[in-house]
Amino acid sequence: MAGSSYGTLFKLTTFGESHGAAIGGIIEGFPANIPIDFALIQNELDRRRPGQSTIVSERNESDKVQFLSGFLNQISTGTAIGFTIPNDNQKSNDYSVLEHSFRPSHADFTYDKKYGIRDHKGGGRSSARETACRVVAGALAKQALTKLNIEFSTYVIQVGSIQLTTDKFYSNTAIESNPVRCPDDALAEKMQALIEQTKKVGDTLGGTIQCIIKNVPIGLGEPVFDKIHAELGKAMLSINAVKGFEIGSGFSAVTMLGSDHNDLFNADGTTQTNYSGGVQGGISNGMPILFRVAFKPVATILKKQSLLGKDGQLDEVAISGRHDACVVPRAVPIVEAMASIVILDFYLRNKSVHL
Amino acid sequence: MAGSSYGTLFKLTTFGESHGAAIGGIIEGFPANIPIDFALIQNELDRRRPGQSTIVSERNESDKVQFLSGFLNQISTGTAIGFTIPNDNQKSNDYSVLEHSFRPSHADFTYDKKYGIRDHKGGGRSSARETACRVVAGALAKQALTKLNIEFSTYVIQVGSIQLTTDKFYSNTAIESNPVRCPDDALAEKMQALIEQTKKVGDTLGGTIQCIIKNVPIGLGEPVFDKIHAELGKAMLSINAVKGFEIGSGFSAVTMLGSDHNDLFNADGTTQTNYSGGVQGGISNGMPILFRVAFKPVATILKKQSLLGKDGQLDEVAISGRHDACVVPRAVPIVEAMASIVILDFYLRNKSVHL
Amino acid sequence: MAGSSYGTLFKLTTFGESHGAAIGGIIEGFPANIPIDFALIQNELDRRRPGQSTIVSERNESDKVQFLSGFLNQISTGTAIGFTIPNDNQKSNDYSVLEHSFRPSHADFTYDKKYGIRDHKGGGRSSARETACRVVAGALAKQALTKLNIEFSTYVIQVGSIQLTTDKFYSNTAIESNPVRCPDDALAEKMQALIEQTKKVGDTLGGTIQCIIKNVPIGLGEPVFDKIHAELGKAMLSINAVKGFEIGSGFSAVTMLGSDHNDLFNADGTTQTNYSGGVQGGISNGMPILFRVAFKPVATILKKQSLLGKDGQLDEVAISGRHDACVVPRAVPIVEAMASIVILDFYLRNKSVHL
Amino acid sequence: MAGSSYGTLFKLTTFGESHGAAIGGIIEGFPANIPIDFALIQNELDRRRPGQSTIVSERNESDKVQFLSGFLNQISTGTAIGFTIPNDNQKSNDYSVLEHSFRPSHADFTYDKKYGIRDHKGGGRSSARETACRVVAGALAKQALTKLNIEFSTYVIQVGSIQLTTDKFYSNTAIESNPVRCPDDALAEKMQALIEQTKKVGDTLGGTIQCIIKNVPIGLGEPVFDKIHAELGKAMLSINAVKGFEIGSGFSAVTMLGSDHNDLFNADGTTQTNYSGGVQGGISNGMPILFRVAFKPVATILKKQSLLGKDGQLDEVAISGRHDACVVPRAVPIVEAMASIVILDFYLRNKSVHL
Repeated sequence: MAGSSYGTLFKLTTFGESHGAAIGGIIEGFPANIPIDFALIQNELDRRRPGQSTIVSERNESDKVQFLSGFLNQISTGTAIGFTIPNDNQKSNDYSVLEHSFRPSHADFTYDKKYGIRDHKGGGRSSARETACRVVAGALAKQALTKLNIEFSTYVIQVGSIQLTTDKFYSNTAIESNPVRCPDDALAEKMQALIEQTKKVGDTLGGTIQCIIKNVPIGLGEPVFDKIHAELGKAMLSINAVKGFEIGSGFSAVTMLGSDHNDLFNADGTTQTNYSGGVQGGISNGMPILFRVAFKPVATILKKQSLLGKDGQLDEVAISGRHDACVVPRAVPIVEAMASIVILDFYLRNKSVHL
Repeated sequence: MAGSSYGTLFKLTTFGESHGAAIGGIIEGFPANIPIDFALIQNELDRRRPGQSTIVSERNESDKVQFLSGFLNQISTGTAIGFTIPNDNQKSNDYSVLEHSFRPSHADFTYDKKYGIRDHKGGGRSSARETACRVVAGALAKQALTKLNIEFSTYVIQVGSIQLTTDKFYSNTAIESNPVRCPDDALAEKMQALIEQTKKVGDTLGGTIQCIIKNVPIGLGEPVFDKIHAELGKAMLSINAVKGFEIGSGFSAVTMLGSDHNDLFNADGTTQTNYSGGVQGGISNGMPILFRVAFKPVATILKKQSLLGKDGQLDEVAISGRHDACVVPRAVPIVEAMASIVILDFYLRNKSVHL
Repeated sequence: MAGSSYGTLFKLTTFGESHGAAIGGIIEGFPANIPIDFALIQNELDRRRPGQSTIVSERNESDKVQFLSGFLNQISTGTAIGFTIPNDNQKSNDYSVLEHSFRPSHADFTYDKKYGIRDHKGGGRSSARETACRVVAGALAKQALTKLNIEFSTYVIQVGSIQLTTDKFYSNTAIESNPVRCPDDALAEKMQALIEQTKKVGDTLGGTIQCIIKNVPIGLGEPVFDKIHAELGKAMLSINAVKGFEIGSGFSAVTMLGSDHNDLFNADGTTQTNYSGGVQGGISNGMPILFRVAFKPVATILKKQSLLGKDGQLDEVAISGRHDACVVPRAVPIVEAMASIVILDFYLRNKSVHL
Repeated sequence: MAGSSYGTLFKLTTFGESHGAAIGGIIEGFPANIPIDFALIQNELDRRRPGQSTIVSERNESDKVQFLSGFLNQISTGTAIGFTIPNDNQKSNDYSVLEHSFRPSHADFTYDKKYGIRDHKGGGRSSARETACRVVAGALAKQALTKLNIEFSTYVIQVGSIQLTTDKFYSNTAIESNPVRCPDDALAEKMQALIEQTKKVGDTLGGTIQCIIKNVPIGLGEPVFDKIHAELGKAMLSINAVKGFEIGSGFSAVTMLGSDHNDLFNADGTTQTNYSGGVQGGISNGMPILFRVAFKPVATILKKQSLLGKDGQLDEVAISGRHDACVVPRAVPIVEAMASIVILDFYLRNKSVHL
C-alpha cells in the first residue's frame, strides 16, 4: 500500500534512488515455463537510457540489468524475479546546492514536507531513473504477450507544436528509424531540430506519445472500478512528467454527437470506427487499444530560476548538468512497458472468470 | 481483485444491476466517531438521480439510500458500513430486444464475450446506475474531509463546443444555480439550449467537468506508482463514458516551454502559477488540486442504428426509452464523489508515514 | 485493508452488527455461468443458525438470505453478488447493562478502546452473528468446488475432554446424524450430555473441529507467504472463539522423528502416510488436506461474574440471555465455509501460473 | 497476489533461490526519520544463520545484508528499502540427484507439479533460506517497535519431548545463554544433548517456540477477518516446517470451562489471568500477546529413504549434506521477525481509525 508496487496478479515492486548503489525490483506472477530472450530486455533498457543520441541527456548510464532469481536455464520458473541495475555514474557533487533548496515543479518540496527528510541527490526516489525498473518488467511482460500474438506500436506524435495525426500501427523499424521515435521522418526531422534548438538555450519541451495495441483478446478488464482503460490511465499518469491521458477519441469526443461517435458493428463483431479505442464498458472488444499520453516540458532547465530555500529564502540559481530537453523519445519504451504490464495483468486476471 | 472494490484504507465495494432488486455497497475504513448528516448524503444522490430536471433522463428513480450498519446514534463507529438503494422503477420490458442483440459502443458485446452470460436489462452491471453507490461513499468521505477544511468546486466547463475557460473556485450556490451545473449563467443557458435541442432529435452530446480541491494538506500521494493524480485519473476513468483525464496544464503542457511551465515558488511555499495542478512528484503541494474529465456523448441514442445480433445479423433498430442527452450535469456529483474517496484514502494512508 | 474483506480473487466483504437492521455481504470473483442451488445455501445457514436443536442457543433467528445481484435465472453472471440477512429477533433491551460495562473475555473493552465508540447491543460488530455471511459465501464456493469434485468432511472431534481420534472422511449423513455433529454416535451422545449439563449450570465448554478436504488438485498454494495452510490458518483463527490451528500432524509433530514423520511416496505420487496434511511447501500435494481448529469455551456465561464499568468500577452481574453452552456444533458449517472460500480462491489464483 | 509479499502498510516482498546469486527483498512502508542501528539487523541475521554453533547445520553462509536504498545517513527516508544477501556458499553439485527426483515431505514434488519446472538446487525457492529476508525486515520493524516500548521474548519451550512450561518474559540474555535458545539452562542442556544425539544418527527432531510481546498498545487488530492473532497465525504458518499455531490458552482451552477461562478484569483494565493471550475479539487488549508455534522435524534427514523419480520409480537414497537436526534454535529470530512485521503493520493500520 506504500506505493512502490504495481499490478495484482502480475506485479512489479521497485526500489532505488537515482544516486544510491543500485535501483531494482521484484516481479511476481510472471507465468512459468516461458523461455526468455534477455537481449530483448536489455534492448528495451537501451532505448530508455540516457546518452543514446544527441537529443537526449548526455549522462552515460550503462543501465545493465542483473537478474538474481526466477529463471532456470533462461526459462521462467514461476517464482519471484529479483533484479538490480547498478548506478554507475553518480556525479553526486552536482547536487550539493539542492540539499537545502527546492527546485520549482520538482518533487523536492513535496518529499521534504511529506517525510521530513529526503535524499536530495538527483531527485532521489522521485527521479525518473526508477522507470528503468518498469522497462525491465514491461520487457518481460511483452515477451509473454508476444506468445499470445499481442503487438505494440508506440511512438511520438507531438513535440511542442509539431504534431502527427494518425492512428496507424507503425512497425518498430519505422519508429526506430530516427532518434525522436516519430515514424514520420519529415516531421521527426523538424521535431529533432526543435529539440536541439531548445536544448541549446537550456530550456525544455513537452510532447505526446501514442500507443496502439493489436490482437488484445476480447474480455480483458474488470467491471466496475478496474476498467482496462482506467488502469492504463493510472499506469501512464504514474510516469514522471505525464499530465494527461486519453483513450480512443479522448478529449475530442466532447464535441462529437453520439450518432457520430458510436462505433457501428460489422457482422463479425469488429467495428467500422474505433472511437472507443478498443474498450467498451471497461473491457477490451478486440479492436486495437489506442491511447495517448501527454508529457509536460520537464522541470529541469539550465536557465536561471528561483529556488526556494528551506529557510524560506528565494535565490536565483542556474543549475548546470545533463538533462533531457524533451523526454518523449526516451519515454516511448516506458509507456510501452507500463502498457505491457497492464495488459498481462488483465490477461491473467481474466483467467479466473471461468472455473 | 475482481474489480468491484475501490480504495485501500478507505474502501468502497459495490454490487448491483440496474434492474435487480437493489444496488448497494460496503464502505470500509471510514474513521470512527464522526457525526454524520444523512440529509447531505441524500442531497448528493438527488443531484445525481434521473428525473431531477428537464435536461436529464425522465426516469424517476427515488434513489433513497438505506444504511444497515456502521453507525450508532448517527455517529460512525469505525466498522463496515453497509447500504442499499432499491431499484424502484424497473421497466424491464423495455429491454427485451437486447436479450439477443448488442448495441454499438455499449458494454453488451464485451460482457457477453467475457462472461458468456449477461443481464441484458438496462445494461445490467455495466449501467451507470452503479455510480449512485459511489456518490454515497463519496458523500460520506466529503463529510470527513470537511472536518479537515478540504473543499470542492466541481462544475461543467464544456458541453459540445460551448466552453468555459476558468480556474475559478466557484461556490456550490453558483454551481447549483442552473440545471447544467455550469457556474457561468450565460454559457449555461446556451448549453441547456443545446442539450434540449439535441435531446429532441434523439441524439447525445459530450462534455467536460472540472474539479478543484482546496486546502488539501501537503504530502498526500505515495511514490512511485500511487501518485495522487494517477489514482485520481483511474478513479475518473472508471466512471462510465469518461474518455480523458488531465491534471493542471494537462494536454496544453505539450506546447509549453519548461521555463514557462515551471511553477515558481513564493517564499511561503505556495507557487505563483499552478500548472502542476497542486501535485508535484505525485504528492500534493498545498496548492489547489485541479483536474478535468472528458465525457463522450453517451452511446444510448434514440435514433435508428444498427444492432448486432448474437447470430451475427445486423438490424436497424430505434430503441425508445428515457435517457440523458448529455451526462455531465448529473456526472458532477459523481466526479466529486470519486475525488472525495481518493483524497480521504490518501489522507489516511499518509498517516502511516510517521511512526 | 480495514479488515472486513477476505480473499484475493474470490473475495467476501461483510457488514453488519448483531442488532442492526441486517447483516450482509458482497462476493466478488465467483466464476460465471455456474447454476446455483439456492436451497443448499439456505441449508448451510440452517446448520449454523441458533434455535436448531436443544443444545444450542434458543435465540430464534430465521437467517433467511436474500440475494440482490449477480445471478440471471439462477446462474451466476460473474459480477458482484450482494446479499443481506435481516436480523429479525433483536431483543436489544437485553443489553442495556452493557452500554457502560465490559464483559470479561469479550470484545467490549477492546472495541471501546480502539474506536472510542461501540455498538454494545449483542456484541455489535464483534458478534459471531457475522459468521452467517461467511456461511453464505462458503456455500456458494462449495458449489463451484463440487463441480471440481472437491469434497469436505467437517465434524466435531472433541467437546471438553471427550475426544474422537480419527482421520476418517465421514459422510455428511454421518455427521448430521446427531445435533453435536460428531460422527461417532456413542461419543456424540456423551458430548451432548456434557453440553446439556454444562448449559444447565450456565457455564460453557470448549471443543475441536476437524476438517478433511478430498480431491484437492495438486498445486494450490502460493509460495512463500501465501502457503495454503497459512491462509487456512488465518481463515480459521478469524472465526470467533478460535484459539488454535494445526495442519496434519500439527502439535504432535513436535515429538516425532523426521524418519517417522516423512510421508514416503507411492509410485503414483500419493504418499503412504499423511502427516503433511495434504500440503508440502505450502502447496497441495493431492492427498487429503486435514486440519483441526480449537475453540475456547465461549465467554458468554450465565453465571455471576465481575464486569468492568467504563468508570473503572467492578460489579458482580449475572447476565441472562440465550447463549450456546458449546459452539462447535454450530461452528462446523462456519469452518467448512471458510475452508471452501480459501480453496476456491487458491484454485482461481493457480490458474494464472501458466500463460 | 503471487505470494511473495507480506503485510499491508508495512510490507515485505522477497525473491531468491537458495543457490542463485543472491536472495533479497523490498520493504515498503517503513516510517520515515527513524535512525537505524544496522549492526542490530546483522545480529539478528547471525542468530539465524547456519554454522553458528555445533547443534545447527555446518553450512557456512556469512549472510551479510547489503542495503541499496531507503536510508540517508543511516536514517530511514520513508521510501522503499531494497536489500540483497549474496549466496556465498552454493555447493550446487550436492544436489544433482534431485534434478529428477522428489524427496519425501519436501516441496520438490509440489513445485514440479505446480509450475512444470523447478530449481532443484537446495530446494530452490522453497528453501528456508528465504527466511533470512524475513529476519532483515523483522529486525527493522523491531527497531521501530522499540521506540514504542514494545518488547519481545521469544524462546524454545520444547524439543522432542523435553518441555518447558512457563509464560515468563525472559530477557534476551537468558535466551542467548545457550545455543538451544531455551532460557532454562538445565532443560536446554538436555535439549542440546538430544539434538546432538539425533544429529549423529542423521535424523531430525521437532520443537516448539513461544513468543511473548509486552507493551503492545490496546487496539491493534482489525475486525472481522484481520484479527491480530489470525494474522500472527498466518505469519507463523508461512514459516517452513511449522505445523501448528495457538494463541493464549490455545488447544488447552478445549478442556476448560468458560467460568475458568474468562479473564476477569482488574479495575485498571488489565486482567487477572491471560488465557486470551493478549487479544480479545481480534484486538490487542494491552496484556502480553502470547503464542506458540509448533515445528515438525525437518524433512531433510541423512538416513536412507525412498525418493520418487519423475518417471515414477522409487529409489532408496541416502542424501549427504549439511542440515539441521532441529530447526527451532535458528527459528527463534524468524518467529520474532514475523511477529515484529505483523505488529508494526497493525500499529500503522490502526492510525487510520481516527481522522
